[in-house]
Amino acid sequence: MPELRKDPVVGRWVIIATDRAKRPTDFIRERVLIRGSGFCPFCYGNESKTPPEVLAYRPEGSERNGPGWSLRVVPNKFPALGIEGTLSRQGEGLYDRMNGIGAHEVIIETPEHHTTMAGLPAAQIESVLAAYRDRIVDLKKDTRFKYMLIFKNFGDAAGASLEHTHSQLIALPVVPKRVQEEVNGARDYYSYKERCLFCDIIRQEASTGVRLVSENERFVALCPFAPRFPFELWILPKEHQSAFDESSRSDFQHLAALLKDMLGRLEAVLDHPAYNYIIHTSPVPDGVNDYYHWHLEIMPKLTRLAGFEWGTGFYINPTPPEEAAKFLREANPITG
Amino acid sequence: MPELRKDPVVGRWVIIATDRAKRPTDFIRERVLIRGSGFCPFCYGNESKTPPEVLAYRPEGSERNGPGWSLRVVPNKFPALGIEGTLSRQGEGLYDRMNGIGAHEVIIETPEHHTTMAGLPAAQIESVLAAYRDRIVDLKKDTRFKYMLIFKNFGDAAGASLEHTHSQLIALPVVPKRVQEEVNGARDYYSYKERCLFCDIIRQEASTGVRLVSENERFVALCPFAPRFPFELWILPKEHQSAFDESSRSDFQHLAALLKDMLGRLEAVLDHPAYNYIIHTSPVPDGVNDYYHWHLEIMPKLTRLAGFEWGTGFYINPTPPEEAAKFLREANPITG
Repeated sequence: MPELRKDPVVGRWVIIATDRAKRPTDFIRERVLIRGSGFCPFCYGNESKTPPEVLAYRPEGSERNGPGWSLRVVPNKFPALGIEGTLSRQGEGLYDRMNGIGAHEVIIETPEHHTTMAGLPAAQIESVLAAYRDRIVDLKKDTRFKYMLIFKNFGDAAGASLEHTHSQLIALPVVPKRVQEEVNGARDYYSYKERCLFCDIIRQEASTGVRLVSENERFVALCPFAPRFPFELWILPKEHQSAFDESSRSDFQHLAALLKDMLGRLEAVLDHPAYNYIIHTSPVPDGVNDYYHWHLEIMPKLTRLAGFEWGTGFYINPTPPEEAAKFLREANPITG
Repeated sequence: MPELRKDPVVGRWVIIATDRAKRPTDFIRERVLIRGSGFCPFCYGNESKTPPEVLAYRPEGSERNGPGWSLRVVPNKFPALGIEGTLSRQGEGLYDRMNGIGAHEVIIETPEHHTTMAGLPAAQIESVLAAYRDRIVDLKKDTRFKYMLIFKNFGDAAGASLEHTHSQLIALPVVPKRVQEEVNGARDYYSYKERCLFCDIIRQEASTGVRLVSENERFVALCPFAPRFPFELWILPKEHQSAFDESSRSDFQHLAALLKDMLGRLEAVLDHPAYNYIIHTSPVPDGVNDYYHWHLEIMPKLTRLAGFEWGTGFYINPTPPEEAAKFLREANPITG
């Protein structure tokens, strides 16, 4: 008998197929390969093919928009939103529209073309996390923006259009619906219990252990109770922290180690799957608060959404998170 | 400059890329082909390979679970939910779970393997719609079920696992989140305006005409103002009707004609795309009411969701609905 489980944050029901549970090898999919053929605008020497950099980590003396950098952030050449202009909202009968103001940036995580994030040294992943924070802190000065989403698309099936390892940042003039739902759920819980929902989740998962994958001094990795996708994985700071950009460099050191380990485990268990990850952080208008708790969600792309998911917002997940967690705990992470 | 548009029902923002708008030929995708190779459990003579039929349209004298039928409804052999048992909810610390009670049925639309729904005669599509209603009416007698979703997956990219043309029905013990959001949005609008939001949308679209694709005496087809997907298409009854199963056989005659025409236009404009369609109807607990208005949503599968969509619930749509509607209006529908 399958089981319905409710996501404790947003109230979404998920169908967990317990009787015909899929093991990692049951998913048919293409392994993500880094081919390295063709021109790449993110490699050394091609800096002029991207818009001018907004941030780069490079040795002193090396020239802006030239080689030598270890990490580079540039505006997206084909942005989903435009940076110029003032926000204006207008109606059209019963409809509402707004001009598409926002920022859309690309974080080029390394000059090395032939690597994946899982293969980067932990210290380099730490730099990537620091770059996320640097950009968020800078963009928060622009009062038009209400939310900054950090995300990563890895592999064709996850929507990546360039294979050179990179993440993206989009700053938005409104708090997106999915995030607002999480904030509302967390706030309702807080007003009822006077405790952070995510802190309670971490406590409960630590005590049962069945969905826990790994932890270190500052962070914990777990498969959530009601995951939408097989092998969905969340990483959360153990101490309450509402926004990603409150993290310190030493937090990032711990997060980088755990993130590298988790990506390496996913590569081992699922044979180099396509995946997305996103960072959910407290919206700008919510400031530092007691009810929201930032976290990173990793979603391997193993299944296809169909009419049922589109029609209901329900998800069918063929792998119980307890089994996914077990496979991930027992894996030997691929690290290079 | 891209544009943000708000869905008037659920409040979801969508990014419409107006400046780099994609034309139908810009989407790279596989054309859906009916191969007809291999064994098919939905063809004549293989009736014993499906669970026993729960409904069939067949000439008098032809035997149950034997050939001769023109349409057949059977339980899904691999159901997402199980039909047996009583509903029980239970907690597990802060989590909630429920046993997976529900019905999952397959509507085999024709014995012909080598056709698509667009290629069926309008009278046969009318039978399919009548079968949807017959099954919904029957399942409504089971008080465990709060919602029945009708949906169709056509083509691999839309999640279809069998190519023989079929639709599916899932009866659920809870009202799904996506539907509840629509009902809430429609109810809020009704309590403010004392008018049905969908009726107002139909009136506004009829008066501007830019997103209107076609209409007949009883139904209208339009591209919604804030579509998640390029070439998304909605069909709605012109007169207010809250639930699909309130429709009469003569309503279905008009709907079948318009649905066939729309699917034929999509096949022509997008060269046989994969698509999903779903029917959104008023939840069982809402009964017949003045605020919700049932409709059919067709979503061609042309783009891939990536981290941004997963993280925000925002969608990026590269084709403005006004352009999609124009292409569809001007198309010569493929009808066979």
